[in-house]
Amino acid sequence: MRVDYPQSLKALLQELERLPGIGPKSALRIAVFLLNQPKEAIDKLVQALQRVRDQLKLCRLCFNYAENDLCEICQDESRETSLLCIVEDPIDIAVIENAGIFRGRYHVLHGVLLPIEGIGPEDLHISELIERLQNEPINEVILALSPTTEGEATSTYIAKLIKPFGVKVTQLAMGIPVGGSIDYADQLTIMRALEGRREL
Amino acid sequence: MRVDYPQSLKALLQELERLPGIGPKSALRIAVFLLNQPKEAIDKLVQALQRVRDQLKLCRLCFNYAENDLCEICQDESRETSLLCIVEDPIDIAVIENAGIFRGRYHVLHGVLLPIEGIGPEDLHISELIERLQNEPINEVILALSPTTEGEATSTYIAKLIKPFGVKVTQLAMGIPVGGSIDYADQLTIMRALEGRREL
Repeated sequence: MRVDYPQSLKALLQELERLPGIGPKSALRIAVFLLNQPKEAIDKLVQALQRVRDQLKLCRLCFNYAENDLCEICQDESRETSLLCIVEDPIDIAVIENAGIFRGRYHVLHGVLLPIEGIGPEDLHISELIERLQNEPINEVILALSPTTEGEATSTYIAKLIKPFGVKVTQLAMGIPVGGSIDYADQLTIMRALEGRREL
Repeated sequence: MRVDYPQSLKALLQELERLPGIGPKSALRIAVFLLNQPKEAIDKLVQALQRVRDQLKLCRLCFNYAENDLCEICQDESRETSLLCIVEDPIDIAVIENAGIFRGRYHVLHGVLLPIEGIGPEDLHISELIERLQNEPINEVILALSPTTEGEATSTYIAKLIKPFGVKVTQLAMGIPVGGSIDYADQLTIMRALEGRREL
């Protein structure tokens, strides 16, 4: 005799629960929030979703998010063409841009190598990277993948692959995060910080 | 020189961050998840939102969620008309229904009294409750509001208001939750559990 939510509410809860980090309780909380708002609140969310679906694509050159054929950065002629930074996700670009010191361009892999899940080099934008090395005046490739096992393996793979093209291949420094405490740094981080120590 | 996300992505993040429990990090995670899915995933979410916006309304009688003029429960002629359970939100109905023993009907206040935030009796569906007491053969009103300060104050207010109509007014029992440990029960819960003790 269990009485359920109306069909339309159940369907919405099901869709919300498919989103990452949203369980049954948060889905319900979000649905109730939307139902308690004027209908325009739902319209605004719907429009934002539709706009992203219709307008957001990937840059033809670097695979960053873009609303045109080229992303904002690839369109910007003031950016250095000799420096190329390799990242895993478009989101990482914003993180690096926020630091405000990198003036080169990017190339987004959209993932890292994950042999166990069947993700090989052909699933990442690696052939397009090779093409760029042949077509653009790139001197240095900076590998800015996360220092996880998979990120490191991907960096090593790419470094080996592109060195024959005569470019300098570098990697972001690993060490104690600024503002972080040495007490909390793990063994591997301390090892990398020691290896990368600098004279003052 | 900060490079931002494309406009459409920024607009979506802004809408997602307005939802309860969603901060900038989870908004980004959800947006990236949607962008990595086939476009149909966004379509399904959009359709679910539109369907709720267009089809879900409140029951004319009890203010539960409904897709018709009357909700499923008010339409069900097998439900007892003499028992009325007062709840704060439509969500509470599902919780009580899941217990499977209540066979009466409901009345949803859509909130509790919150004088500090200016929410008075006229903002809840209390006048409609009075109307129902006059029109329906109700013998007992069960107050099933949460035992918070505001819930208790609202229960007291309603009990006082409806007793003159000659109905029995009861409240859900308070005590140690089933499966809960006495060690973890707070002082007030223990007090209420002692007051409500039953002979075995």
